[in-house]
Amino acid sequence: MKKIEDCTFGVVGLGLMGGAVALALRGKTRRILAYDIDVAVLETAKKDEVIDEGFIEPQEMLPMCDVVYLCLNPSTLLAFLDAWMPFFGAGSLLTDIAGVKTPIVAAMEEKLRPDLDFIPGHPMAGSEKGGFAQAKSCVFTGKNYILTPLKRNKAENIEFIKNVIYRMGFSRITETTAEDHDRKIAFTSQLCHVIAAALIDCEPDRNITRFGGGSFEDLTRIAMLNVPQWTELFLENKRELLRRIAQFEDSLDKLKTLVAEERKDDLQAYLQTARERRASMK
Amino acid sequence: MKKIEDCTFGVVGLGLMGGAVALALRGKTRRILAYDIDVAVLETAKKDEVIDEGFIEPQEMLPMCDVVYLCLNPSTLLAFLDAWMPFFGAGSLLTDIAGVKTPIVAAMEEKLRPDLDFIPGHPMAGSEKGGFAQAKSCVFTGKNYILTPLKRNKAENIEFIKNVIYRMGFSRITETTAEDHDRKIAFTSQLCHVIAAALIDCEPDRNITRFGGGSFEDLTRIAMLNVPQWTELFLENKRELLRRIAQFEDSLDKLKTLVAEERKDDLQAYLQTARERRASMK
Repeated sequence: MKKIEDCTFGVVGLGLMGGAVALALRGKTRRILAYDIDVAVLETAKKDEVIDEGFIEPQEMLPMCDVVYLCLNPSTLLAFLDAWMPFFGAGSLLTDIAGVKTPIVAAMEEKLRPDLDFIPGHPMAGSEKGGFAQAKSCVFTGKNYILTPLKRNKAENIEFIKNVIYRMGFSRITETTAEDHDRKIAFTSQLCHVIAAALIDCEPDRNITRFGGGSFEDLTRIAMLNVPQWTELFLENKRELLRRIAQFEDSLDKLKTLVAEERKDDLQAYLQTARERRASMK
Repeated sequence: MKKIEDCTFGVVGLGLMGGAVALALRGKTRRILAYDIDVAVLETAKKDEVIDEGFIEPQEMLPMCDVVYLCLNPSTLLAFLDAWMPFFGAGSLLTDIAGVKTPIVAAMEEKLRPDLDFIPGHPMAGSEKGGFAQAKSCVFTGKNYILTPLKRNKAENIEFIKNVIYRMGFSRITETTAEDHDRKIAFTSQLCHVIAAALIDCEPDRNITRFGGGSFEDLTRIAMLNVPQWTELFLENKRELLRRIAQFEDSLDKLKTLVAEERKDDLQAYLQTARERRASMK
């Protein structure tokens, strides 16, 4: 198996997540290279010693990398792979961070160059602040990471990527199918962002936070989302997201009815079940 | 005007909030007395030097207090005031912490003993952990506090209570009517708790947190609520809460439609407005 410290890592897309990956890998690899369309970001990252070298031409960087971390939105990712597939180094290992996995896995099962390996992943970390300049605010320590391996993935490559993930500070890795990932992420991530945005939509008073005690702030922080990225995630995972919204609406409706009809015992039972279930979640 | 350091404070109800009030006042007053039905809690609080003396009989404590902090649920509070009104010290100042204000204000405008002053308040702080033992986890520093004065309140008593509130660590005090409080709290607090409970209601899988990236955890932490307390708050403020749930459902429905119909530009505009509005909230 490859050793992390002997590998040249390439980061494609030096935004919030690409920057956080580079920061988390710094000093643990042979070299970190990065490709971005923004020269200024590459220069800053090199000056700050977050990366060893920046590239604005993928074909110059890709052949030198043992491992490539693709830190792009789903659609940009697929376009990038289509365009630059021939330039990856022979036998190199690819992984990504996209928040929907079904379209990525489907495309890679079909189109990946035979000598390459691509392990789809999703680091469950982020920040309402965007861009490379905010990469430090994207904390990996103690966070979850999901892998949705392809049928063709080599066991030793999966082991290698897991080592990389733990070395970056993540504490829990779950392996599952792309479909299961998309079903669950529609709930834990996309539905939560939808709720946060809807909560803000229904209250135009900017001074409402004078009446906040923490709950409102916690529930709506993620309304400060990256708009193009989340628009894409919502639409890419539309079917599962709509199913989750409908489930949530049913649960909300049940609770609303209990309040409206002042069914105190049933209301208490509903809240008690929620309390115990949430407390048992680790 | 009274000086805080010369006053004997009485805390009625030494639970999470009563305990947190006593902790925040410790060392800043002449004495802190406390009434509770639980002798063990009073003994612990005295042993830990959070209070100077504990009482299980209100009529023994109340006459000694210059200021009484009533830390009870709304219905218990009104029953307590009905039962013990004659025993408050002449000219003493009362304040409460109840999460709905309209019924309290209505009752006090009518029933308060003429020589007393009662300033209804709501510290916007709490914890999903309950009881005196968890009082330390209820942080006041930097938090909001709402006051809904009675018509009869003396200006100097309002000033005094504001000083007490700032001394306890709160950073922002808003004065408003009980009706305005209940309308806004229905949104910032009760609706958020309803949403958290409904989110947990619609997902029985306790391992779903393996797919959490922080948003889900932040949105559902408050599902671990104090069940009897929140049942009472929801029902006491039923009309405003139902109105807020309906508003939220409308906003959610708008967003759902944009996703379902893949109206990308409108979806981006909706999210952009939410993002900017939330970012402008202080």
